[in-house]
Amino acid sequence: MEKLTETSSITRRSFLAAGAALASTAVFSPYVIGNSRPKERLGVALVGLGYYSTDLLAPALQLTKNCYLAGIVTGTPAKAETWKKKYNIPDKNIYSYDTFDQIANNPDIDVVYVVLPPSMHREYVVRAAKAGKHVWCEKPMAPTVKDCEAMIKACADNKQSLAIGYRCQHDPNTQAFMKLAKEKTLGKVKLITCAAGYNEGRVGHWKLNKALGGGVMGDMGVYAIQGARLAAGEEPMLVTAQHINNRPELFKEVDETTLYQFHFPSGAIANCTSSFGINTNFLKVNYEKGFLHMDPFSAYKGNKGTYTNGEINFPLDNQQAKQMDEDATSIMQKQPMLAPGEEGMRDIRIVESIYEAARTGKAVKI
Amino acid sequence: MEKLTETSSITRRSFLAAGAALASTAVFSPYVIGNSRPKERLGVALVGLGYYSTDLLAPALQLTKNCYLAGIVTGTPAKAETWKKKYNIPDKNIYSYDTFDQIANNPDIDVVYVVLPPSMHREYVVRAAKAGKHVWCEKPMAPTVKDCEAMIKACADNKQSLAIGYRCQHDPNTQAFMKLAKEKTLGKVKLITCAAGYNEGRVGHWKLNKALGGGVMGDMGVYAIQGARLAAGEEPMLVTAQHINNRPELFKEVDETTLYQFHFPSGAIANCTSSFGINTNFLKVNYEKGFLHMDPFSAYKGNKGTYTNGEINFPLDNQQAKQMDEDATSIMQKQPMLAPGEEGMRDIRIVESIYEAARTGKAVKI
Repeated sequence: MEKLTETSSITRRSFLAAGAALASTAVFSPYVIGNSRPKERLGVALVGLGYYSTDLLAPALQLTKNCYLAGIVTGTPAKAETWKKKYNIPDKNIYSYDTFDQIANNPDIDVVYVVLPPSMHREYVVRAAKAGKHVWCEKPMAPTVKDCEAMIKACADNKQSLAIGYRCQHDPNTQAFMKLAKEKTLGKVKLITCAAGYNEGRVGHWKLNKALGGGVMGDMGVYAIQGARLAAGEEPMLVTAQHINNRPELFKEVDETTLYQFHFPSGAIANCTSSFGINTNFLKVNYEKGFLHMDPFSAYKGNKGTYTNGEINFPLDNQQAKQMDEDATSIMQKQPMLAPGEEGMRDIRIVESIYEAARTGKAVKI
Repeated sequence: MEKLTETSSITRRSFLAAGAALASTAVFSPYVIGNSRPKERLGVALVGLGYYSTDLLAPALQLTKNCYLAGIVTGTPAKAETWKKKYNIPDKNIYSYDTFDQIANNPDIDVVYVVLPPSMHREYVVRAAKAGKHVWCEKPMAPTVKDCEAMIKACADNKQSLAIGYRCQHDPNTQAFMKLAKEKTLGKVKLITCAAGYNEGRVGHWKLNKALGGGVMGDMGVYAIQGARLAAGEEPMLVTAQHINNRPELFKEVDETTLYQFHFPSGAIANCTSSFGINTNFLKVNYEKGFLHMDPFSAYKGNKGTYTNGEINFPLDNQQAKQMDEDATSIMQKQPMLAPGEEGMRDIRIVESIYEAARTGKAVKI
């Protein structure tokens, strides 16, 4: 167990900055922590130090303006040591899964960002909410809708906000194609074709493990579901789905590739592909009066495309930094989260319907 | 009934040209008609003077070098009159469906091009073959595989060639993406996404009539099936499919939109859309080491695209003219047809499997 008493220079600096900025930020940052001292930047604790935390979120948190990496939760002492040195994290802000609940007493931590395998999301979101912390939760939100409901309830009961790590919704390129649907710039949406996949072959990884919340639909599926939903500007009412497994020796428990089709209330149709065996990332839309073609549409960076009236190619320094900065601002300004728990749950409900449709060969009402 | 005695100037010119070119073309045009006189250009009779014959094939036949519009078969005397004047067709080369079989005695007609509703293809292909004429048949080849088998047999029994009107296979843009699969330029094919559709709403049209061979799969479906098969460079072994009908008041008998998924022996996957309710035409391929994006991929003209190594954008004056010229050359040189009856039948077999898959909700072996 790590010591919980030290204070790192970076955290002290943040506190000093917060103090100095008190007067000027009070109006714009009405967020008030327990001791009534408004904060300029929220302290974020990353829970789970796998690839995404290590290679994406931690570096992004060096670029954020409204939040910073204040703490970590890890079950691996060696990782704690590495991160402590690399990011000057004070020992008192370093937790194990056993000491996690003590985070309730740590004013440095405003937000707990759950970056664990999906099967652990529910437990840690609920524990974070009970510890009185706002919660960010990586996608997929959880393995089941039941889990999602419990997570939303826990945050509501404890008066904490909940945001899902849907970085793409913060990307202006995504917002551009959402706008095409909302404003009917090119008329009604008729056909959405969307694919997201990469070649996953890591034996033993949670993505291949059913009990840990693996399977392609939670991982890559959510991207194409989001692509279809956001490009449609409405929610699907009916779904059919199919699994194709080219590597049964590797994908023993979960789906490798899943194809699925949505029928929307307006009549719009989506034909989607999610895969752990195919490198693909595109969104194509046929509207009444035009087209959209994004490739890639949900990458970490470089999302871009063309449509009937021109290009969609908004520069973006760091998607995850924008996501966390905007989510931090929403918390500080007591505004709704851009992608709240309810949004994450919508996708999980669709994922459950997709699995049922693939199992039964029937169209499933969502 | 029209007179069968007149000879138009254009036909006379062709005959004179054929005679003049005898010596020089004998080696290269070994095709010999009944009277042992080699022809420089084959005479084509169009059977069925609907939109495709009127707006596409007849104009294209004014551009062809190896064949020409020699005759017509129509049940509408007014159409016969219009065409006779417009194209200088001699009365002796104008047939009704009653007089059709007399075409056997007409040396002007080398090829009978069947452009009727699909339900009539079998009858007229068989009758044309029995009349001793080579046959071109529009897509879809026929409503059933059984029909296709009978058509292939009739042509073989009568020693006549049979080509399906797959204009795209003659398009260098199609040939370019076929080559990517064949030569594995970008590695193995992983995912093919293909869509072909337009907005069909003509009440009473054969495309909406089941008995006449209507339905989206025969009409637009064959394009996306061809797109998937040709881009894969192999034949699908398994298919799933779904119908979506947004206008049940219009599509009472046949499918409006059908989505279908192929699994190929190599592991390649195709996710396809064919629709009478959506304007769409694209082919997207994800290979092991790259991509292809054709839009449009199966239009009458302007097919073009980009792929990892550059552009695919071969100019083409007239797709149908190229198709008919190449098919005429194959006949004259006694070479196999580029898209023979067996190729048309492959697609019809797949269409039958797609309808079965949609009906049962199960994956169907092809």
